[in-house]
Amino acid sequence: MRSKGFEGMVCPIAGVMAAIGDRWGLLVLRDLVFGLSRYDDFRRSSGVTNTTLSDRLKQLEAAGLIGRRPYQTAPERFEYFLTERGRKIAPLMPVLAQLGDALGVSGAPASPLQFVNRQSGAPVTWGFVDADTGKALDAAEIAMQEGPGADELMRWRLSRKAEASK
Amino acid sequence: MRSKGFEGMVCPIAGVMAAIGDRWGLLVLRDLVFGLSRYDDFRRSSGVTNTTLSDRLKQLEAAGLIGRRPYQTAPERFEYFLTERGRKIAPLMPVLAQLGDALGVSGAPASPLQFVNRQSGAPVTWGFVDADTGKALDAAEIAMQEGPGADELMRWRLSRKAEASK
Repeated sequence: MRSKGFEGMVCPIAGVMAAIGDRWGLLVLRDLVFGLSRYDDFRRSSGVTNTTLSDRLKQLEAAGLIGRRPYQTAPERFEYFLTERGRKIAPLMPVLAQLGDALGVSGAPASPLQFVNRQSGAPVTWGFVDADTGKALDAAEIAMQEGPGADELMRWRLSRKAEASK
Repeated sequence: MRSKGFEGMVCPIAGVMAAIGDRWGLLVLRDLVFGLSRYDDFRRSSGVTNTTLSDRLKQLEAAGLIGRRPYQTAPERFEYFLTERGRKIAPLMPVLAQLGDALGVSGAPASPLQFVNRQSGAPVTWGFVDADTGKALDAAEIAMQEGPGADELMRWRLSRKAEASK
Protein backbone atom coordinates (compact mmCIF):
# COMPACT_ATOMS: atom_id res chain seq x y z
CA MET A 1 0.00 0.00 0.00
CA ARG A 2 1.37 3.34 -1.03
CA SER A 3 -0.22 6.68 -0.31
CA LYS A 4 0.08 9.56 -2.70
CA GLY A 5 1.47 11.63 0.15
CA PHE A 6 -0.01 14.90 1.25
CA GLU A 7 -1.85 16.66 -1.58
CA GLY A 8 0.64 15.30 -4.08
CA MET A 9 3.61 16.72 -2.20
CA VAL A 10 6.80 14.71 -2.51
CA CYS A 11 7.95 14.69 1.11
CA PRO A 12 8.10 11.86 3.64
CA ILE A 13 7.45 14.27 6.53
CA ALA A 14 4.27 15.60 4.92
CA GLY A 15 3.27 12.03 4.08
CA VAL A 16 3.46 10.89 7.69
CA MET A 17 1.32 13.78 8.82
CA ALA A 18 -1.22 12.99 6.11
CA ALA A 19 -1.36 9.34 7.19
CA ILE A 20 -1.78 10.25 10.87
CA GLY A 21 -4.34 12.91 9.95
CA ASP A 22 -4.20 15.27 12.88
CA ARG A 23 -3.65 15.35 16.61
CA TRP A 24 -6.77 13.23 17.20
CA GLY A 25 -5.47 10.61 14.83
CA LEU A 26 -2.16 10.61 16.66
CA LEU A 27 -3.91 10.25 20.02
CA VAL A 28 -5.75 7.16 18.76
CA LEU A 29 -2.41 5.71 17.62
CA ARG A 30 -0.89 6.64 20.99
CA ASP A 31 -3.72 4.85 22.77
CA LEU A 32 -3.29 1.75 20.60
CA VAL A 33 0.42 1.71 21.44
CA PHE A 34 -0.66 2.05 25.09
CA GLY A 35 -2.71 -1.13 24.68
CA LEU A 36 -6.17 0.42 24.41
CA SER A 37 -8.37 -1.14 21.76
CA ARG A 38 -12.02 -0.25 22.33
CA TYR A 39 -14.05 2.69 21.17
CA ASP A 40 -15.16 3.71 24.65
CA ASP A 41 -11.59 3.53 25.90
CA PHE A 42 -10.41 5.91 23.15
CA ARG A 43 -13.25 8.24 24.11
CA ARG A 44 -12.30 8.19 27.77
CA SER A 45 -8.59 8.50 27.09
CA SER A 46 -8.68 11.59 24.92
CA GLY A 47 -12.10 13.13 25.46
CA VAL A 48 -12.64 13.06 21.70
CA THR A 49 -16.18 13.46 20.38
CA ASN A 50 -18.01 10.54 18.74
CA THR A 51 -18.02 12.25 15.36
CA THR A 52 -14.29 12.97 15.38
CA LEU A 53 -13.34 9.56 16.74
CA SER A 54 -15.44 7.66 14.18
CA ASP A 55 -13.95 9.73 11.43
CA ARG A 56 -10.34 9.27 12.54
CA LEU A 57 -10.77 5.52 13.03
CA LYS A 58 -12.03 5.25 9.44
CA GLN A 59 -9.20 7.40 8.18
CA LEU A 60 -6.50 5.43 10.02
CA GLU A 61 -8.04 2.21 8.67
CA ALA A 62 -8.02 3.66 5.14
CA ALA A 63 -4.36 4.58 5.63
CA GLY A 64 -3.68 0.93 6.51
CA LEU A 65 -2.42 1.80 9.99
CA ILE A 66 -5.18 0.12 12.00
CA GLY A 67 -7.57 -2.77 11.59
CA ARG A 68 -10.69 -3.84 13.47
CA ARG A 69 -12.41 -7.08 14.42
CA PRO A 70 -15.74 -7.76 16.15
CA TYR A 71 -15.54 -8.76 19.80
CA GLN A 72 -19.27 -8.72 20.53
CA THR A 73 -22.55 -9.17 18.63
CA ALA A 74 -26.00 -7.65 19.39
CA PRO A 75 -24.99 -4.92 19.43
CA GLU A 76 -21.98 -5.54 17.23
CA ARG A 77 -18.85 -3.98 18.68
CA PHE A 78 -15.34 -3.82 17.30
CA GLU A 79 -11.94 -3.66 18.79
CA TYR A 80 -9.13 -1.95 16.98
CA PHE A 81 -5.51 -2.95 16.57
CA LEU A 82 -2.35 -1.66 14.93
CA THR A 83 -1.57 -3.39 11.65
CA GLU A 84 2.00 -4.46 10.92
CA ARG A 85 2.27 -1.20 9.04
CA GLY A 86 0.77 0.77 11.92
CA ARG A 87 3.22 -0.71 14.41
CA LYS A 88 5.99 1.09 12.56
CA ILE A 89 4.64 4.27 14.13
CA ALA A 90 5.13 3.00 17.70
CA PRO A 91 8.77 4.21 17.99
CA LEU A 92 7.53 7.73 17.32
CA MET A 93 5.83 7.80 20.73
CA PRO A 94 8.95 7.88 22.95
CA VAL A 95 10.43 10.47 20.60
CA LEU A 96 7.37 12.72 20.89
CA ALA A 97 7.12 12.12 24.63
CA GLN A 98 10.73 13.17 25.19
CA LEU A 99 10.20 16.22 22.99
CA GLY A 100 7.03 17.13 24.86
CA ASP A 101 8.90 17.02 28.15
CA ALA A 102 11.76 19.08 26.70
CA LEU A 103 9.33 21.74 25.47
CA GLY A 104 7.41 21.74 28.73
CA VAL A 105 4.08 21.03 27.03
CA SER A 106 3.10 17.84 28.81
CA GLY A 107 0.56 19.64 30.97
CA ALA A 108 2.36 18.53 34.14
CA PRO A 109 5.34 19.92 36.06
CA ALA A 110 7.18 16.60 35.75
CA SER A 111 7.22 13.88 33.10
CA PRO A 112 3.88 11.99 33.03
CA LEU A 113 5.24 9.11 30.98
CA GLN A 114 8.59 7.40 30.93
CA PHE A 115 10.21 4.88 28.65
CA VAL A 116 12.60 2.45 30.29
CA ASN A 117 14.57 -0.69 29.58
CA ARG A 118 12.04 -3.46 30.20
CA GLN A 119 14.68 -5.61 31.92
CA SER A 120 16.65 -3.16 34.04
CA GLY A 121 14.32 -0.17 34.34
CA ALA A 122 17.09 2.12 33.06
CA PRO A 123 15.87 5.27 31.29
CA VAL A 124 15.75 5.11 27.52
CA THR A 125 16.85 7.98 25.33
CA TRP A 126 17.05 8.15 21.57
CA GLY A 127 19.59 9.52 19.22
CA PHE A 128 21.17 9.47 15.80
CA VAL A 129 23.67 6.88 14.70
CA ASP A 130 26.14 6.82 11.81
CA ALA A 131 25.06 3.75 9.84
CA ASP A 132 28.65 3.03 8.75
CA THR A 133 30.49 3.42 12.04
CA GLY A 134 27.64 2.81 14.52
CA LYS A 135 28.75 5.91 16.41
CA ALA A 136 26.31 8.37 17.95
CA LEU A 137 25.93 11.69 16.12
CA ASP A 138 24.82 15.13 17.31
CA ALA A 139 22.11 16.89 15.32
CA ALA A 140 24.76 19.42 14.21
CA GLU A 141 26.76 16.63 12.55
CA ILE A 142 23.85 15.72 10.32
CA ALA A 143 23.20 17.21 6.89
CA MET A 144 20.12 16.96 4.67
CA GLN A 145 20.45 16.11 1.02
CA GLU A 146 18.19 15.10 -1.83
CA GLY A 147 17.46 11.43 -2.25
CA PRO A 148 16.75 9.59 -5.50
CA GLY A 149 13.02 10.38 -5.16
CA ALA A 150 13.46 14.15 -4.83
CA ASP A 151 11.36 16.35 -7.10
CA GLU A 152 12.07 19.92 -8.28
CA LEU A 153 10.40 21.39 -5.24
CA MET A 154 12.47 19.30 -2.82
CA ARG A 155 15.64 20.32 -4.66
CA TRP A 156 14.56 23.95 -4.44
CA ARG A 157 13.92 23.70 -0.68
CA LEU A 158 17.33 22.15 -0.14
CA SER A 159 18.96 24.84 -2.27
CA ARG A 160 17.49 27.45 0.08
CA LYS A 161 19.23 25.69 2.94
CA ALA A 162 22.51 25.98 1.06
CA GLU A 163 21.79 29.71 0.50
CA ALA A 164 20.97 30.26 4.16
CA SER A 165 24.21 28.69 5.40
CA LYS A 166 26.47 30.78 3.11
CA MET B 1 7.25 29.21 28.87
CA ARG B 2 4.97 26.34 29.69
CA SER B 3 1.88 25.39 27.76
CA LYS B 4 -1.12 23.84 29.42
CA GLY B 5 -0.85 20.97 27.00
CA PHE B 6 -3.69 19.89 24.77
CA GLU B 7 -7.10 20.77 26.23
CA GLY B 8 -5.79 20.17 29.72
CA MET B 9 -4.61 16.66 28.91
CA VAL B 10 -1.58 15.52 30.87
CA CYS B 11 0.45 13.91 28.10
CA PRO B 12 3.69 15.00 26.45
CA ILE B 13 2.66 13.45 23.12
CA ALA B 14 -0.60 15.38 23.03
CA GLY B 15 1.30 18.50 24.10
CA VAL B 16 3.70 18.35 21.18
CA MET B 17 0.84 17.98 18.73
CA ALA B 18 -0.91 20.95 20.31
CA ALA B 19 2.25 23.08 20.03
CA ILE B 20 2.79 22.11 16.39
CA GLY B 21 -0.92 22.63 15.66
CA ASP B 22 -1.50 20.49 12.60
CA ARG B 23 0.20 19.26 9.46
CA TRP B 24 0.49 22.80 8.13
CA GLY B 25 2.22 23.90 11.30
CA LEU B 26 4.61 21.00 10.98
CA LEU B 27 5.33 21.88 7.34
CA VAL B 28 6.27 25.42 8.38
CA LEU B 29 8.61 23.97 11.00
CA ARG B 30 10.00 21.56 8.40
CA ASP B 31 10.66 24.48 6.05
CA LEU B 32 12.38 26.48 8.78
CA VAL B 33 14.62 23.49 9.51
CA PHE B 34 15.27 23.38 5.75
CA GLY B 35 16.51 26.99 5.93
CA LEU B 36 13.46 28.74 4.49
CA SER B 37 12.49 31.91 6.32
CA ARG B 38 10.18 34.04 4.19
CA TYR B 39 6.44 34.03 3.84
CA ASP B 40 6.49 33.58 0.07
CA ASP B 41 8.91 30.69 0.39
CA PHE B 42 6.60 28.90 2.84
CA ARG B 43 3.77 29.47 0.37
CA ARG B 44 5.75 28.02 -2.50
CA SER B 45 7.11 25.13 -0.48
CA SER B 46 3.83 23.74 0.80
CA GLY B 47 1.14 25.33 -1.36
CA VAL B 48 -0.56 26.53 1.82
CA THR B 49 -3.20 29.26 1.52
CA ASN B 50 -2.53 32.76 2.86
CA THR B 51 -5.19 32.41 5.53
CA THR B 52 -3.85 29.12 6.84
CA LEU B 53 -0.22 30.19 6.68
CA SER B 54 -0.83 33.47 8.53
CA ASP B 55 -2.76 31.63 11.18
CA ARG B 56 -0.14 28.90 11.69
CA LEU B 57 2.71 31.43 11.85
CA LYS B 58 0.86 33.29 14.62
CA GLN B 59 0.13 30.07 16.42
CA LEU B 60 3.73 28.82 16.25
CA GLU B 61 4.89 32.23 17.49
CA ALA B 62 2.39 32.05 20.37
CA ALA B 63 3.74 28.58 21.20
CA GLY B 64 7.23 30.11 21.42
CA LEU B 65 8.58 27.92 18.63
CA ILE B 66 9.26 30.65 16.08
CA GLY B 67 10.10 34.35 16.08
CA ARG B 68 10.07 37.01 13.37
CA ARG B 69 12.07 40.10 12.51
CA PRO B 70 11.59 42.72 9.77
CA TYR B 71 13.91 42.46 6.78
CA GLN B 72 12.27 45.15 4.66
CA THR B 73 10.16 48.29 5.15
CA ALA B 74 7.55 49.86 2.78
CA PRO B 75 6.02 47.40 2.60
CA GLU B 76 7.14 45.93 5.88
CA ARG B 77 8.12 42.30 5.51
CA PHE B 78 9.24 39.79 8.09
CA GLU B 79 11.42 36.78 8.08
CA TYR B 80 10.81 33.94 10.47
CA PHE B 81 13.24 31.87 12.47
CA LEU B 82 13.22 28.98 14.92
CA THR B 83 13.64 30.10 18.52
CA GLU B 84 15.98 28.17 20.81
CA ARG B 85 12.87 26.35 21.94
CA GLY B 86 11.76 25.74 18.37
CA ARG B 87 15.11 24.26 17.40
CA LYS B 88 14.42 21.41 19.80
CA ILE B 89 11.92 20.18 17.22
CA ALA B 90 14.55 19.86 14.47
CA PRO B 91 15.59 16.28 15.40
CA LEU B 92 12.01 15.21 14.81
CA MET B 93 12.44 15.77 11.07
CA PRO B 94 14.84 12.89 10.29
CA VAL B 95 12.67 10.64 12.46
CA LEU B 96 9.52 11.56 10.55
CA ALA B 97 11.32 11.36 7.21
CA GLN B 98 12.57 7.85 7.92
CA LEU B 99 9.10 6.82 9.07
CA GLY B 100 7.53 8.34 5.95
CA ASP B 101 9.87 6.30 3.77
CA ALA B 102 9.17 3.14 5.79
CA LEU B 103 5.41 3.63 5.40
CA GLY B 104 5.74 4.43 1.70
CA VAL B 105 3.90 7.75 2.04
CA SER B 106 6.56 10.10 0.73
CA GLY B 107 4.75 10.53 -2.58
CA ALA B 108 7.77 9.19 -4.49
CA PRO B 109 8.98 5.65 -5.30
CA ALA B 110 12.33 6.35 -3.62
CA SER B 111 13.38 8.49 -0.69
CA PRO B 112 13.11 12.21 -1.58
CA LEU B 113 15.18 13.35 1.38
CA GLN B 114 18.17 11.85 3.11
CA PHE B 115 20.03 12.59 6.29
CA VAL B 116 23.74 11.92 6.25
CA ASN B 117 26.87 12.43 8.29
CA ARG B 118 27.95 15.95 7.29
CA GLN B 119 31.63 14.88 7.22
CA SER B 120 31.58 11.47 5.60
CA GLY B 121 28.21 11.37 3.81
CA ALA B 122 27.36 8.11 5.60
CA PRO B 123 23.62 7.48 6.08
CA VAL B 124 22.19 8.44 9.44
CA THR B 125 19.67 6.30 11.26
CA TRP B 126 18.16 6.80 14.66
CA GLY B 127 17.45 4.48 17.50
CA PHE B 128 16.95 3.99 21.20
CA VAL B 129 19.75 3.86 23.70
CA ASP B 130 19.90 2.59 27.27
CA ALA B 131 20.95 5.68 29.24
CA ASP B 132 22.88 3.59 31.78
CA THR B 133 24.82 1.28 29.46
CA GLY B 134 24.83 3.33 26.24
CA LYS B 135 23.75 0.21 24.36
CA ALA B 136 21.25 0.28 21.52
CA LEU B 137 17.78 -1.07 22.35
CA ASP B 138 15.05 -2.56 20.15
CA ALA B 139 11.55 -1.14 20.51
CA ALA B 140 10.49 -4.48 22.03
CA GLU B 141 12.99 -4.01 24.86
CA ILE B 142 11.33 -0.77 25.91
CA ALA B 143 8.51 -0.47 28.43
CA MET B 144 6.28 2.48 29.27
CA GLN B 145 5.66 3.48 32.84
CA GLU B 146 4.15 6.39 34.69
CA GLY B 147 6.42 9.30 35.51
CA PRO B 148 6.19 11.63 38.52
CA GLY B 149 3.85 13.92 36.58
CA ALA B 150 1.30 11.22 35.71
CA ASP B 151 -2.35 11.94 36.48
CA GLU B 152 -5.18 9.46 37.09
CA LEU B 153 -5.96 9.22 33.39
CA MET B 154 -2.35 8.43 32.46
CA ARG B 155 -2.26 5.76 35.16
CA TRP B 156 -5.50 4.32 33.81
CA ARG B 157 -4.12 4.21 30.26
CA LEU B 158 -1.01 2.42 31.44
CA SER B 159 -3.09 -0.03 33.45
CA ARG B 160 -4.91 -0.97 30.22
CA LYS B 161 -1.53 -1.81 28.69
CA ALA B 162 -0.83 -4.11 31.62
CA GLU B 163 -4.26 -5.74 31.08
CA ALA B 164 -3.65 -6.17 27.38
CA SER B 165 -0.31 -7.93 27.85
CA LYS B 166 -1.68 -10.45 30.37
